[in-house]
This record gives sequence, structure tokens and C-alpha cells, in this order.
Amino acid sequence: MVGQEFVSFLQNHPWFDLTWLGASDRSSGKKYHEATMWRLGGETPAYVRDIVVSDSAPKGAPKLVFSAMDASVATEIEQAFAAAGHIIVSNSRNHRMEADVPLLVPEANADHLDLLPTQAKRGWSGRIVTNPNCSTVVLVMALAPLKPFGIKKVIVTTMQAISGAGYPGVASLDILGNVIPFIGGEEPKMESETQKILGAFAGSKIEPLDAKVSASCNRVPVIDGHTICVSVEFEKKPTEQEIIAALNGFRGVPQQKNLPSAPAQPVVYMEQENRPQPRRDVERDHGMAVFVGRLRKCPVLDYKFVAMGHNTVRGAAGAAVLNAELMQAQGLL
Amino acid sequence: MVGQEFVSFLQNHPWFDLTWLGASDRSSGKKYHEATMWRLGGETPAYVRDIVVSDSAPKGAPKLVFSAMDASVATEIEQAFAAAGHIIVSNSRNHRMEADVPLLVPEANADHLDLLPTQAKRGWSGRIVTNPNCSTVVLVMALAPLKPFGIKKVIVTTMQAISGAGYPGVASLDILGNVIPFIGGEEPKMESETQKILGAFAGSKIEPLDAKVSASCNRVPVIDGHTICVSVEFEKKPTEQEIIAALNGFRGVPQQKNLPSAPAQPVVYMEQENRPQPRRDVERDHGMAVFVGRLRKCPVLDYKFVAMGHNTVRGAAGAAVLNAELMQAQGLL
Amino acid sequence: MVGQEFVSFLQNHPWFDLTWLGASDRSSGKKYHEATMWRLGGETPAYVRDIVVSDSAPKGAPKLVFSAMDASVATEIEQAFAAAGHIIVSNSRNHRMEADVPLLVPEANADHLDLLPTQAKRGWSGRIVTNPNCSTVVLVMALAPLKPFGIKKVIVTTMQAISGAGYPGVASLDILGNVIPFIGGEEPKMESETQKILGAFAGSKIEPLDAKVSASCNRVPVIDGHTICVSVEFEKKPTEQEIIAALNGFRGVPQQKNLPSAPAQPVVYMEQENRPQPRRDVERDHGMAVFVGRLRKCPVLDYKFVAMGHNTVRGAAGAAVLNAELMQAQGLL
Amino acid sequence: MVGQEFVSFLQNHPWFDLTWLGASDRSSGKKYHEATMWRLGGETPAYVRDIVVSDSAPKGAPKLVFSAMDASVATEIEQAFAAAGHIIVSNSRNHRMEADVPLLVPEANADHLDLLPTQAKRGWSGRIVTNPNCSTVVLVMALAPLKPFGIKKVIVTTMQAISGAGYPGVASLDILGNVIPFIGGEEPKMESETQKILGAFAGSKIEPLDAKVSASCNRVPVIDGHTICVSVEFEKKPTEQEIIAALNGFRGVPQQKNLPSAPAQPVVYMEQENRPQPRRDVERDHGMAVFVGRLRKCPVLDYKFVAMGHNTVRGAAGAAVLNAELMQAQGLL
Repeated sequence: MVGQEFVSFLQNHPWFDLTWLGASDRSSGKKYHEATMWRLGGETPAYVRDIVVSDSAPKGAPKLVFSAMDASVATEIEQAFAAAGHIIVSNSRNHRMEADVPLLVPEANADHLDLLPTQAKRGWSGRIVTNPNCSTVVLVMALAPLKPFGIKKVIVTTMQAISGAGYPGVASLDILGNVIPFIGGEEPKMESETQKILGAFAGSKIEPLDAKVSASCNRVPVIDGHTICVSVEFEKKPTEQEIIAALNGFRGVPQQKNLPSAPAQPVVYMEQENRPQPRRDVERDHGMAVFVGRLRKCPVLDYKFVAMGHNTVRGAAGAAVLNAELMQAQGLL
Repeated sequence: MVGQEFVSFLQNHPWFDLTWLGASDRSSGKKYHEATMWRLGGETPAYVRDIVVSDSAPKGAPKLVFSAMDASVATEIEQAFAAAGHIIVSNSRNHRMEADVPLLVPEANADHLDLLPTQAKRGWSGRIVTNPNCSTVVLVMALAPLKPFGIKKVIVTTMQAISGAGYPGVASLDILGNVIPFIGGEEPKMESETQKILGAFAGSKIEPLDAKVSASCNRVPVIDGHTICVSVEFEKKPTEQEIIAALNGFRGVPQQKNLPSAPAQPVVYMEQENRPQPRRDVERDHGMAVFVGRLRKCPVLDYKFVAMGHNTVRGAAGAAVLNAELMQAQGLL
Repeated sequence: MVGQEFVSFLQNHPWFDLTWLGASDRSSGKKYHEATMWRLGGETPAYVRDIVVSDSAPKGAPKLVFSAMDASVATEIEQAFAAAGHIIVSNSRNHRMEADVPLLVPEANADHLDLLPTQAKRGWSGRIVTNPNCSTVVLVMALAPLKPFGIKKVIVTTMQAISGAGYPGVASLDILGNVIPFIGGEEPKMESETQKILGAFAGSKIEPLDAKVSASCNRVPVIDGHTICVSVEFEKKPTEQEIIAALNGFRGVPQQKNLPSAPAQPVVYMEQENRPQPRRDVERDHGMAVFVGRLRKCPVLDYKFVAMGHNTVRGAAGAAVLNAELMQAQGLL
Repeated sequence: MVGQEFVSFLQNHPWFDLTWLGASDRSSGKKYHEATMWRLGGETPAYVRDIVVSDSAPKGAPKLVFSAMDASVATEIEQAFAAAGHIIVSNSRNHRMEADVPLLVPEANADHLDLLPTQAKRGWSGRIVTNPNCSTVVLVMALAPLKPFGIKKVIVTTMQAISGAGYPGVASLDILGNVIPFIGGEEPKMESETQKILGAFAGSKIEPLDAKVSASCNRVPVIDGHTICVSVEFEKKPTEQEIIAALNGFRGVPQQKNLPSAPAQPVVYMEQENRPQPRRDVERDHGMAVFVGRLRKCPVLDYKFVAMGHNTVRGAAGAAVLNAELMQAQGLL
């Protein structure tokens, strides 16, 4: 599924041409449209239909390779590509928490790319960069603008779309008219990834953010768009106006460099009392912005709010492409 | 809708016979099955089809009257019945937070019935008792067994079923494949009702529980069953085993007196990693128990867990009927 | 899934005790609750939790065996049991259209049991009987009462519940907010099974009903309950009143013999303009009746109407159990 | 809702500028964004936010007026505008079946505009044209290419999206996990409108198509996109190849004149066995094409197939705009 989202997102990309596709032995040698059943809307995009799928080995692959591999195989294959000199921009979880691998949300921590030279110690001539788990991105995008206020404690409850589980993913008998209050491995990922992304680059490593983060993750019957309810405690005590100004005014390197996939305003505060909503807001700004609403006092921590973002775009394919654009703009490709 | 749920729940009740139905002028004088379109499963129960609907005035009404009136009219009408000597067991929100009105969850605070004599100061020969908002009940049932550990802070995020909004209630265009991160008035109700219910009867009034409670309320596309994610901080520091033992071992007056609608075990801890789930668990124990699962450490407060209960049974009609059964057992009817 | 439905349906059955469970090698030797994840509501029923699962071979199995095997293995295994003297009451599709195997809807064609002696030619000391596909049952139950009017042409469009596809079955990404206008193999099954069931026992074989049947099968996001829209042309030209009287007045051998799982009234005509509906009517009469509504003139054939029945009860486990009850009542077990 | 769809569809239209908005007294005098809650995705489009809403009277209105009025008021108001010289392009049902009013699907019956001069007999200096009901359009678009084969009988069963019922429209408690086998007034509309649209302009009136049409209409939990299952009998007996070629090769006046909202290929036949599907295909071609699939023999009539189209675009706002574009191209505005 994430592979198909890359195909969809890269269509007509101004900088990158999708020219090579790698997959398992089962698919290699077939044309893309024969090797895969298109699960997104419409039909397999014409520009990729007849590309013959290669096997997942570096030979013949271009320098920049996006990875959407299953975690069961990604470690070895991604490292083989890196060793062979490729830049792996990965959506897989395998290398995210490695000390020498940037876990990027370009608006939040573009400077973590400075970790890359430390990968040379692995003997790689290439590099690996990663983007976070789809639910982490939504949280980090909403918190990054608030980092100057001193984030101390975060409690987040997610309501995650089924597309986050891939295909076939969640059985309809499990989720239709239901809530599944568990997503395997998701909560620790949200907690630790958030600390790493919002951490500081300190010489040759990342100092994770010194904040406590607690996540409760749920699956709900929504197609696209993870909605999260967040309570936060700050060191400094900002007013509501200061928080909203920080959210709406937040800009990062992608905006400064005008990267092709960067949303003009990465975080949008909505004033309506019942927004954001996944079905009504997920497609806005090509799925690359995160929407926040309902900021109000939290009787336990300081403030609470709602955030929502597109899990397969901002949380997967679009995130990786923005990472690659950032690297291109920084001269790292 | 709540009226229909009363009709459904009271069918074949061993103690109470539904003999009288009051409604607005628009319906009074008609037979029940002509005055209302049955919205629950199946058809209008035979035992109530031909009861002629009265207007909502005390004349001719029995002593015990269940109220499921709209908040726009409940204050005056309920008080008129109480003045005329009736026992109003109300699901409406209007009197819940009045200082002299018990807000009951019989397993948690049966002793709050001792407030009733103070209602005599209003000049009423009758009385009003209330049950909480449907989302509050689920939270209170899960917290009541933990009260001995000293509840200090509670952060709760709800995922609430559409049946909680009545009929026609939530438009399908608003909720199908969507999450609505707002339910009007719900969060303050959950916060203050929880403090009152878990508070202590102190002579002639209730001392609310001295705990901070923060609620974030969401509507999700589920028919019946509110699911909540809860983080709690305790004064004493119980172990996981102590918490689970407290939940499963919790019994209240309804169980001691073996009230007809009381579940044998009011709070059930489920060991499976992905339960409770509304669609799979909501009908168990006739909808009168609350199910808890996924107890684990919270990095911010002490523990977090999931709870789920039937919002129109335990959270509305069943709650009111259990209140009436409690009063009957205490000799108050 | 159908296995679990058998377990659920047979709980507290007055005639049959579930004492033996067979499954694939992967499960045999384990206790039932270890071998399977319970997918229906609530938890694994206590009466079956600790039964040790056997492998799917006749040794040690009781005389009466219900089969819910996958079509890929059912042919051989069911025949092995029949050869070994067992009565196989099967929900699998493999033997349904075999000339010597009764395809039963007990209210419609109990006399097709007279085919059983012809199975002796296979050298079996046991027997195999089958129930139809879940969508066929709903159609046949609605048509059987109308057979006296001379059914000549039938066009049926189905809207089928996801539980008909088993578990994991339909991916949520395929069906949430969607219609899938195709169910593999379903349409030919509905067409041919209907002709066989409504056919006549003629000495040693079944003469299929001489009617043209056309089916269009769709999957819709409904949990339980197949809804079908039917147009019919009759040889005789009944009035609407005659059709409704035939539907409501229809009784078969299960009703005459008062079989434990037989609904008192197998076909119920609903007068409301917007019924039957799967979510509101599927649980009525323990899921064993079929509901019909909206009878009206068809401008192309003679009449059109809507029918709805429970696909995993009347269309699977309940159907098989009723078949076994019929055989018991006829002295065939 | 249809008003909002017009606002959405007319954004950036190359020929028409939306400059005037009329509504009931309740809204007139307010800015559009104050008068209405935006129910579609995102927020109220900026270009229309501050337009002050007029009352629904001709004074001050432009020559071309789109009407999306409720049927309870449309007759009088539309006639008042027509009398005052306006061209009313209406999506309301009120005038559709009037003998002197074109009921247009521009690809199918552009010549029905020749009816317009007969409206002069009403004393109007303006004119009224209409588009069909949203389910009719899908059927007519699929049938129009097949008209040369001599359509004699049509049986159609619909599975209609909730957006077809407007806002708040269908209650979520009615449709979540359910099918409602009834839509008030829909079936007669589909039957008679189809005959009129596919009929022949004969001098000063329309001779309806001499074909029997039978419709069964259902509501299903789908946001946008009506799916229909159709069986057809033809006078001539085309092959499957001839039918598919007719569907894919179909072009009408909108394509010949290259109207701005005309899809390049109005009817698209999909070869995949499980398509079209509303969620995956409804947004293709800006919602203006109709997708057909699963052509196969019908055992009762000649052929059966599935069709799907966007009910609020091709079936409402987009249909009306295409009608206006056709009139503009014909010099009728």
C-alpha cells in the first residue's frame, strides 16, 4: 500500500522521476500493473504501468531509493543499499531509532541531517534517513511549534484510520461499527519517536526531548486521517493566543526553501468548535498540512487540543518525499 | 429514543409494570404505537402498543415516574411531578448537579440517597433522583473500585457511539467514515459529574471528590457502546495486580441486595490485548456491566486503561431502572 | 467463523450436545480456546473452551457431524466421514449440487431427504446432506410460499453482509463506505441452487424448478443480514393479498414437527414502507425467520419485493442445525 | 447541500461567474458564510464567502440562475423567475415531468432543448430546463449508448449514497451498518424520467421511450456515488463486444462542442471483475463520467451490468452546469 502511495504521490513530481521499482522475487520481472492490484482510487497510473519490477537489490537501482518495505525484511535490504552507495529514504520502522539515523520531520528537525556523516562509521558510502510512524507525525507537527514553551508532559489518545494498517490490514469484521483499542507496537513508537524528533542535535548524536509522553492508540472506522486528542504541560505558561499564534505562524526549512511538497502553512489552527475532522479536512493542502483545533485549558495538565493529519501522505509517502526534497535542497543527494 | 429504551428495558420487569406514558401535547391522546415510530430493533413491543399516551402532567400518573424528557422542558415538569408527590427517576440532565439531588451510580454511591430528605425544603412531597450522563457512567464505574487508592488526577478521552445523541441525532453525512472531536456540553458534564458521584455524603450535602478530571469527547461511527481511554494518578501507589483485583472484586449495594437489573460482576477486567470493544462486548451482561482492559503504566500519570459500557443501557434507561430498584430495596418508593 | 457460529448456535441445544471438534493438524491436540481466536461477541463459550480439538478424521467422532470446512478440503474429508458411517450435515458448498445429495431448506423441500438412499450407491454407510449458500436461503424462503403460483422468472439483486465472507474475509479498505459489486462464484450458486431446492423429488432424483433465475450479488458494509430485491413473474396471476397471505401463512415440516430451531412463522411480511432492514430485523426470531416487505407491482415482471435474512444463522449454522433436527425427527439419525 | 455543491462546482468556471445567491428570508441579507454552515470538505470557498444573500426573487438576479430549491417552494419561485425573463437551470424535481420542460442529460438528449419555444405559451419570457434525479442520471448515461439496440425492458436495483438525501438527510442511526430498502418517491421518478429522457423529440413534444422500466431503490452507507445493477432486454440482439464498444465509443454534443464540464469519455467500461466501486471510482473525471462494468448475460432478460456515477456532481450540480453550458453553446443564454 505504501508503495502505491509513493507511486501516486510521485506522479508529476517536479524533481524526481520514478524510473525503477524493486520488490520481492514473487513480483520481480513482471510489469508493475501485473505485479500488483491497484488498491487506491481509480486505476494504476499510466506512467508506471509498464515499468518492469526489479528485485530488491542495489544493482541497477538509481542513487535515490524510497523504501516502503515490510519490517521483516527492511533491515538487511536497506543496509545493503546504503552500503552500495544509495540514499535510502525509508518509511519502514527498522532504522528509525538507530542512533546514527535521522528520524525526520523536516519542519521540526531538519538539522538532524547532520547525523548523516556518522553513518560513515558503518562503512556505508550511502545513507539512510527515515520518517516517523504515521501517528507520530501528527503529534510532532502539532508540538513542534510549541517547543519554545518548554514541553514537559504529553498525554495523547489517537483515533487512527484503517489505511494506516496497509492492505488487507484490518478485517472489516473487526472494525465496522467498532473501535479497536489496540494497535500492536504503536504506543511505544509514538512515545520514543516523539522524544527523538523533538530532541536536539548535540555534536554527533541526538539528545531526546526531556518530556514524558504517554500514548493510547485506537483504530476507528475512518479511511484516511489520524485524529489525536492531546493534553500538554509546558514549562513556560503560554496563553491561548500565544499557542494559536505559534501554531499558525510555524514555518520550517521546507517553507523557507519552498520545497515542492511543502505546505505553505504546515500547521493550521481551525476556529470551528468541531474541527478538524478526518473526512472533511484530510485532503486539504494535498494532505501535507496538519490541522489543529479545540485548544482549551486542561484541568490536569495545562492545555488540551485536537490534531489531525493524513496518515498515508504526511504520515508516509509524502513524508518520505519531503525528506528527499530536503536532502536535495541541502545538497545531500 | 431514551423513552423507547425504557420501554424496551422495562419489558418483563419483575418489580415494575409500565402502565402510564406521558408525552407532549402532540402525542397525548394517541396510542403509543401511533404516537411514535419505533427506532430500536424489531417492532414496538406488544405490551405497550395500545397504551394511550397522557400529557406530561402528574394527574393520573403512578407514584414512580421515569423521566427521559428533553432538557428544554425537564426542569419545570419534573419539579411539578415532585411537588405533586411523585418519585421522579430522571435521565435528564437538568437536576443532576443540584445540591439536594442525588446523582446516582448505585454501585458507587448508594449512600447519596441520604440527600433525599433535604428536598423537603423545596416543599415537595415527592423526590427527584438522577443518573449521570452516558459517558460519565462508564468512567465512574471504572474508577469507583479504585477510589480506595486515592484518585488524584484523571485524563479521559472518549469515543462515543451515535446512539448517545438520540434520534435523528447525528447526521450520517457528519459521522460516516469520520470522527467528530466535539460533543456539545459533554466535557464539563463528565468532569463535574464524576467529582460529585465519587464524592462523599457529608451530613446534608455532597463533598465532591478532590481530584482533577479532564475529558476530551469524540463521536465515532459506532452504534452502541462508549469506549474511553483513561490515565489516572493515585495517592497510594497500587500494583497492577491490586488494580485488577479491585476492578474484578468490586461489588456494591445492587449486588448485595441482588437487584433485578444489577450485573453479578459490575466491572469486568478483560485480559485480551485488544479488548474491550464496543461491537463485541456491549451486549454482554444485558449491557449493565462495564468492561475494562489494557491496564498498563502511564509515563505521565500512574496507570492507563480502556473502559467500555453500554451508553443507552448502563448509561441511560438501565441506569434509571437500577436507581429505582435501589430505592425500592431501600424502602423509598 | 462458521465453526464458531455452530458453537454459538448449539449452546444449550435441547437435542444435540457438542462433544467433539475436528480441525486441521495445526489446531488438533489443542484446547478449543487455545486453537482459535473467538471472533463473535463476548468470549469463547465456557461449555466448549476446554474440548481438545481432534484432527478431521472419522475416528472417535460421533455419528452426527456438522461440517463447516473450507471448500478446498471438504470434498475428501466429508466423503471419508460418510464412508465411515457418519451423518455429515454440511454447510460447505462442495456436495450441494451433487445429484444424490439433498440441498435442504426444511420448510421448502423436506421431501428431498428421500434422495438419501441413493447415496448407498457410493458405498457409503453414512450420508451427506447440505444447506444452501447464505444468499440462496433468503431467496428460497421468500419464494417457497409462492411456488403454488407458478414461478417462471426471477431477477434478484443482493446486498450482502460482510460476515458472509468469513474471517478475515473482506478487507476494511475494500468495504468501508463502499459497495463491491462482485462476490466470486455467488451468482451461479444462487441461480442453480434455487432451481434445485424448489425442484421436485421425482423418484430417485430432483427435477429442478423450470424457472429462469438471474442474480446480481453485491457486498455492502453491513455486519449480518443479506437484503435482496426480487422481481418475479408467475404463471398464475395472484393478487397482492394472495401473495401476502401465502407468505405469512407459509408453514413447513419444521413447524409441523415443532423442531427446536424452527421459527414459529418462517416468513414474516412487514407492512412498514421501509422494512425489512438488516440491522433492525436480523436478530428477530433468533435469526431463523426471513422477513419480506415492499410488495408491489413490477412494470417488467409481475411483482417485486424486498427480503432479508440472517446469513450466518438461517444462512449457515442455524440452517445446518435445522437440517439435523429434521433428520432426527424423521428418524434418520 | 446542492447549493453548496453548485458553489463548489462553479469555482473557477471558465464561462460562468457566481455573482448572486438567493435563499429564504431567514438567510437573505447575511453574508454567505454567515448564512450557511459549510458541509462539504474544507472551508467555505473564499470567492463566495462575502457575497450577501438575496431573497429568492427575480429582482437583481442575473439572467442565468441555477435552482436547487426544495420541492415545497420551487414551483412558484422558478415560474416567477421564468416569467421575469430568467433562464432557470433547475435541479429541483418540480418541473421535470412537465410536457414543455426539457429534462436534459446533454449527452443523451440535447435535442430536447427544442421544446423551449413551447414555453412561450406560458407567457414566460424566460425558460426552465431541468436535470434528472441523481439515480436516473446514472441509468440514463449507461442506457443512452445502447438505445440503437432497441431497449425494451429494464430492471434496475440501486444502492444509493447518503449524500443524495441532502443535509441532515439520513440519520446515522438509520444507515450505519444498515441498508434502507426504500427512498420516498424515487422509484417512480427513475422509471418515468428515464422514459422521457430517452424519448424522441416529435415536433412540439417528447414521445417517451417505449420501454418498460422497473426500479428498486435502496440507501446504503456510502458517502458519494450511486451504484446500480441493471438487467436489459433489447429488440436487436447485440453481442457483448458490440455493447462494450457502444459504451466506450459513446459521445454526445457536450463532447463535440468540448463543453468545459464535459468528460472526454462520458461512459467508461471497466474490465476488472469487481468494478466500478463508488469509493474508488466516484472522483474520477471530476465526477462527470459514468462507469460501467460486469457486463454478462442475464438468464431472464438479455444482459446485466453494473453502473456507478457521482450523485451530487453528475447527478446534481455538475449536471445543471453542463445543461447551462449546452445552452450557452447553442446560443440559448
